[in-house]
Amino acid sequence: MPIRVYLDWNATTPLRPEARAAMLAAWDQIGNPSSVHAEGREARRLVEDARGAVAAAVGGLPRNVVFTSAGTEANALALSPGLRGPARGPVERLLVSRVEHASVLSGGRFPMDKIGHIRVTRAGVVDLDYLKAQLKDGPPALVSIMAANNETGALQPVAEAAQIVHEAGGLLHVDAIQALGKIVFNINEVGADLATFSAHKIGGPKGIGALVMADGISGLEPALRGGGQELNRRAGTENVAGIAGFGAAVKAALQALPEDAKRMATLRDHLENGIRAIAGATIFSEDAARLPNTILFTARGLKAETAVIGFDLEGVAVSSGSACSSGKVQPSHVLSAMGYDPATAQGAVRLSLGWSTEPEDINRALEAWRKLGNTLLRG
Amino acid sequence: MPIRVYLDWNATTPLRPEARAAMLAAWDQIGNPSSVHAEGREARRLVEDARGAVAAAVGGLPRNVVFTSAGTEANALALSPGLRGPARGPVERLLVSRVEHASVLSGGRFPMDKIGHIRVTRAGVVDLDYLKAQLKDGPPALVSIMAANNETGALQPVAEAAQIVHEAGGLLHVDAIQALGKIVFNINEVGADLATFSAHKIGGPKGIGALVMADGISGLEPALRGGGQELNRRAGTENVAGIAGFGAAVKAALQALPEDAKRMATLRDHLENGIRAIAGATIFSEDAARLPNTILFTARGLKAETAVIGFDLEGVAVSSGSACSSGKVQPSHVLSAMGYDPATAQGAVRLSLGWSTEPEDINRALEAWRKLGNTLLRG
Repeated sequence: MPIRVYLDWNATTPLRPEARAAMLAAWDQIGNPSSVHAEGREARRLVEDARGAVAAAVGGLPRNVVFTSAGTEANALALSPGLRGPARGPVERLLVSRVEHASVLSGGRFPMDKIGHIRVTRAGVVDLDYLKAQLKDGPPALVSIMAANNETGALQPVAEAAQIVHEAGGLLHVDAIQALGKIVFNINEVGADLATFSAHKIGGPKGIGALVMADGISGLEPALRGGGQELNRRAGTENVAGIAGFGAAVKAALQALPEDAKRMATLRDHLENGIRAIAGATIFSEDAARLPNTILFTARGLKAETAVIGFDLEGVAVSSGSACSSGKVQPSHVLSAMGYDPATAQGAVRLSLGWSTEPEDINRALEAWRKLGNTLLRG
Repeated sequence: MPIRVYLDWNATTPLRPEARAAMLAAWDQIGNPSSVHAEGREARRLVEDARGAVAAAVGGLPRNVVFTSAGTEANALALSPGLRGPARGPVERLLVSRVEHASVLSGGRFPMDKIGHIRVTRAGVVDLDYLKAQLKDGPPALVSIMAANNETGALQPVAEAAQIVHEAGGLLHVDAIQALGKIVFNINEVGADLATFSAHKIGGPKGIGALVMADGISGLEPALRGGGQELNRRAGTENVAGIAGFGAAVKAALQALPEDAKRMATLRDHLENGIRAIAGATIFSEDAARLPNTILFTARGLKAETAVIGFDLEGVAVSSGSACSSGKVQPSHVLSAMGYDPATAQGAVRLSLGWSTEPEDINRALEAWRKLGNTLLRG
């Protein structure tokens, strides 16, 4: 393939060299972390080192970190009826914002009739007054609000939500999968009772995620039973190399965060200015605080599917909404929740940047648009 | 670490070079398989190539392969109420043999009061007459019997069981996690409706498994919901490198199988003869057909925990039962189901061989025994 411009970092981030090195080293540890011999103990050490790194990165304690096979499984595990905290819960119902990832919207282990939805504003931000009203009546709720939206990049008022939820005797789960490594995220500063993360969004491997609980949260119902791994909270032989890669990636990502964020924001602004110059362009969530790397936009006449293919042929990888929803015919549930009609939603193209994005990439993306724009908007 | 003798292949198999190479190549594919751009399509190709390899290895069709995060998740997914085949099912209850892995014994999505157990003989082999009697009354059952036991190595009469189960209008799930790569296993020859596999038992990476269904099986209830991955049967971004490693490992393992099995059996016999010479030694399941690589034994006065540590200090990695149960205080449920008392069960030591086991390893293990035996049996 000729050199390409990769502007789909919210779907997958290239592997960080630190993660590669950690995984290569882990491949030589043949032991099963549950085995008591030297080989087993060495594998266990890798897992526990990574657990410490993930915990430290987000303000949790190692014993409250549960490794899972991805963000989806972490979210499914987090959404557990019966969760309780000191003097709060046990939760008997679930409230999720309408802009959550599909794995949260599906409600985990809550039955459908125990799941409610939280409205968002036109800018794609959770409506806290609506949340307050929803919490007023009914039993203690688990509330799930993401730290940053994966399509628009809009930051959510999770710290304010935590206060509201706690006052109502409930618990807050924060899907921080898109936020980690792009903004500062600490479960204590936010007041999150549970938070979920995915390695491949920060330069770790695909296929590994984590649930981190605040200390004192109990009642988590395991979703996978069998062996006693992860303190009986998640059965199955550990993905040792993947976990080691996650640990190395999170360390590297957090160390680089201040500089990366500044760099990405500068390039994002440059790209966004180019897009604003398009006649009839809309930047979704432009009135909200957003991640430093994400632009979701449309323009009159644009069809996202055609645009993605057009950009691809010009050597630029962009996305129509989230990868998890790609290939689906329905328009984005996120834009629909924000009040956009299906036709507008189906014209939304996402550009997301990362640490190795160069000014030249932005220029090439804008060039591609200049070349394609007329055709794409005519269709 | 000085050169060690690794005789715990049933817990974890070293990575095959073919799996390493496939994963290294996969790391350079940054795309998300759900993305439609070139990077996404390339990642998708790796996943689908591996799917084809796994399907071909066990006689399935690629569209009926569902990748999971490990054998435990594959088993949990397989044990789904509502499964049906052509003119069989939907299954309303589950019958599992008493020697299944903990992830099967936990029953998947079946409620506890719908789970029955199948007796095994003193040799650790499923009692088919008992199975027949259990199937006679009651609604269609899903029956779960492993191809080979992970502790004793005893092969199970899965082909005969399939006939019995099918005649009763039920479905058969075969946990073939220990069998794959050690004996020939083909879902069509066995007549299995569902079968489960794990990559790290055949020299693939930890953290990846698969469920393979016979064609025409439907009604599988997904356990993870969210994105539309794995044809809506298992949500979550695919572990692309892990899947590619699994595909490469299964190809290599099956190609090497005839020679590996012969080699392992010869070395196993050599080791077993040495053990038989110990006064009061018992080889569990010695009256059953067994995997070519596994010996579970005890001797009067032996304590497995002490033996594992003693061998470890002598540079030999052995196991007390399965790794998944290590650190648990309870004696093996497998030996208990075979009618052994707890004291005997707690003396069981497992030795399992693999493709790189050398005659010298066997000699060193027997030497370690000669050195340790007196002390271990005195205690």
